[in-house]
Amino acid sequence: MNEIEAAVIEKAKRAKSAARVLAYLSTAAKNTALTAMAEALEANSGAIVAANARDLEAGRKKGLSGALIDRLMLNEARVKEMADGLRDVVRLPDPVGEVVAMWRRPNGLEVGQVRVPLGVIGMIYEARPNVTVDAAGLCLKAGNTVVLRGGSEAVHSNVAVTRIIAAAAQAAGLPEGAIEFVDRTEREAAQVLMRLNEYLDVLIPRGGAGLIQTVVRTATVPVIETGIGNCHVYVDEYADPAMAEPIIINAKCQRPGVCNAMETLLVHKKAAPSFLPVIAAALKQRGVEIRGCPETLKHVSWARQATEEDWKTEFLDLVLAVRVVADIDEALDHIYRYGTKHSEAIVTENYAHARRFLREVDAAAVYVNASTRFTDGGQFGFGAEIGISTQKLHARGPMGLKELTTIKYIVYGEGQVRQ
Amino acid sequence: MNEIEAAVIEKAKRAKSAARVLAYLSTAAKNTALTAMAEALEANSGAIVAANARDLEAGRKKGLSGALIDRLMLNEARVKEMADGLRDVVRLPDPVGEVVAMWRRPNGLEVGQVRVPLGVIGMIYEARPNVTVDAAGLCLKAGNTVVLRGGSEAVHSNVAVTRIIAAAAQAAGLPEGAIEFVDRTEREAAQVLMRLNEYLDVLIPRGGAGLIQTVVRTATVPVIETGIGNCHVYVDEYADPAMAEPIIINAKCQRPGVCNAMETLLVHKKAAPSFLPVIAAALKQRGVEIRGCPETLKHVSWARQATEEDWKTEFLDLVLAVRVVADIDEALDHIYRYGTKHSEAIVTENYAHARRFLREVDAAAVYVNASTRFTDGGQFGFGAEIGISTQKLHARGPMGLKELTTIKYIVYGEGQVRQ
Repeated sequence: MNEIEAAVIEKAKRAKSAARVLAYLSTAAKNTALTAMAEALEANSGAIVAANARDLEAGRKKGLSGALIDRLMLNEARVKEMADGLRDVVRLPDPVGEVVAMWRRPNGLEVGQVRVPLGVIGMIYEARPNVTVDAAGLCLKAGNTVVLRGGSEAVHSNVAVTRIIAAAAQAAGLPEGAIEFVDRTEREAAQVLMRLNEYLDVLIPRGGAGLIQTVVRTATVPVIETGIGNCHVYVDEYADPAMAEPIIINAKCQRPGVCNAMETLLVHKKAAPSFLPVIAAALKQRGVEIRGCPETLKHVSWARQATEEDWKTEFLDLVLAVRVVADIDEALDHIYRYGTKHSEAIVTENYAHARRFLREVDAAAVYVNASTRFTDGGQFGFGAEIGISTQKLHARGPMGLKELTTIKYIVYGEGQVRQ
Repeated sequence: MNEIEAAVIEKAKRAKSAARVLAYLSTAAKNTALTAMAEALEANSGAIVAANARDLEAGRKKGLSGALIDRLMLNEARVKEMADGLRDVVRLPDPVGEVVAMWRRPNGLEVGQVRVPLGVIGMIYEARPNVTVDAAGLCLKAGNTVVLRGGSEAVHSNVAVTRIIAAAAQAAGLPEGAIEFVDRTEREAAQVLMRLNEYLDVLIPRGGAGLIQTVVRTATVPVIETGIGNCHVYVDEYADPAMAEPIIINAKCQRPGVCNAMETLLVHKKAAPSFLPVIAAALKQRGVEIRGCPETLKHVSWARQATEEDWKTEFLDLVLAVRVVADIDEALDHIYRYGTKHSEAIVTENYAHARRFLREVDAAAVYVNASTRFTDGGQFGFGAEIGISTQKLHARGPMGLKELTTIKYIVYGEGQVRQ
């Protein structure tokens, strides 16, 4: 075992040992720790900002873009936001201990499903240091311990933040190991973490497509895949154009860099002649570049011709692919072929088409007459989210506290044996 | 791409394409197909028995044990059992389409969770050909297509069986590809299957520890780990010995070769002097070999001394490790250290000890005063099971039809956009 491996395993071991205690800690004890963590962040905001300055300096030397530098940057106000995020988690109901169902068998056995923590959660993520605090808070509230591995760009900030919150949690009575941060920035450290089946119960990667795919391909620990969204809005033959326009503008422009933003617009051929010129003009006004199919170009002369690659691309930018389709079947086929099963929307006033779209589209969230931007834990009413799952196992769509738990069966008997 | 890879991918492609149709097929259509499959099995029982004879002959040449040959063997009665198994699945409620929950958000959006199939399920399993029919029936009823890869010992039987049920399903209106069987017995075929993330949504291995671990370590497709059970029964200081004895005998002897059988007995030191000689004699009478800790040997002179390895071993045989513990804490520590999180039981009349055991033991099923042998889909009331999950993600414990589904969010709006 080399030095990196030993360092990662030591942290994972501590987290596993702490998980045994966290699993049945009372809600009050967890909330006390979360509150103490929030206070410690604010009290040490100077030290955090100073550590962050080292990351910013390294980032500037490395030539990170202004947008990335801004995402990385922490000041007193942003540290307070992180602390307030923890206080929000305090207010969320504790999912642990809920008896989801319980029933009696003919032999008198009572079989119940009780909600319990997953155990040890590994988080591998990029960039923003606020993810560190968010993830630690949510994992802890759901009774899990967490082994965090953030991007190298934020390593000084993350080390400072995790030292502060881990110490505060411990001072508030939590076991050592409840929050662990892997400070080794070598690629190997992440790869060791991905294969620690003995210590980790689940791995949640958060970041770009490259990171997610590396984790999916490398990990032997069970993974919850998050975040890639090639989302579509389909404007049906029976759409109300006055409703379609704000939905499309919202889905594309409100925050183009996130996974639930629309990347391709599909328009029914009967709606295209009247609707396309109007929506294209509205989008152009907001700086959106359009890449259209040949039929689209007939109605939007200034658009660029879309390539096969464009239908597959999550632009995460003010770029939109537009395709005219013959009918709802062609729209469903296009989504089946190019979609990433994240968020898909239809705009229609037709009952049967709404029903078909809801039933036949295979995605985490399927919308009728609303923007795809709502796929979010906060918007769905979960209070917070740790990511958006795009896989089908365990959790699908926005993951809140409940998705950070599992169940176990509890069985009450009076001496029953199996016949 | 080599020939084996091409052959496996072709099957997985057909399964993926069929999954799109299966996902929203009516319950009636699925039941018609299942019934047709059952009838076809019975009608072609001669051909199945003939194919099975080739497997039996090969097995005898290979020197398989009598027990294995018996598990492999199909006759008319066993084919009828497989057919009846499918008819049982017809009678189970269809989990697909259930709206698990639905709520209204302040902006008027209605957000619902609807139960949908997983999609394409890969099954990698060993030996018994009845698993082939069971798995196909359960996957199909839950709206999934299935790519089966059985052990080489049963390949002729499996090819015959799957040809018959797949043809019957297709004749009854199901799409081609609903049931696929990988008839390539090369190790490489299984390994290709384990990495087909593009086509498979989940992989369920069933078999011995070696198979399960290979799949966990090799697969990039999400895996549901099944079946390893190093299960314990703890006889507390406050146990009723008259209740403990039948539970222990049942847990060890009723069917020692399965994963929910007990492998280690833990006895409180105060119960040991009176209870151990009695239970040991009862077990000896049933042919059970005892491997005990030094304290156990004081009360059971004829027992063999247990090694460290014995505490870790899933004997799957009439062998039992026995350890005397100082208190419930030592019992919990032993289970934490050696258990595989499958099924664990306490026998006690003490309320606080029962509560502690239920709360603190981290396992798929935790029992008070009942045999561990009840961890089973049929015994829990699920009607059928496709395996017992020993992981925490997605499903834990016996997996019935519901565990072969996932959810998607459906969102009804009237033009809502995100602020």
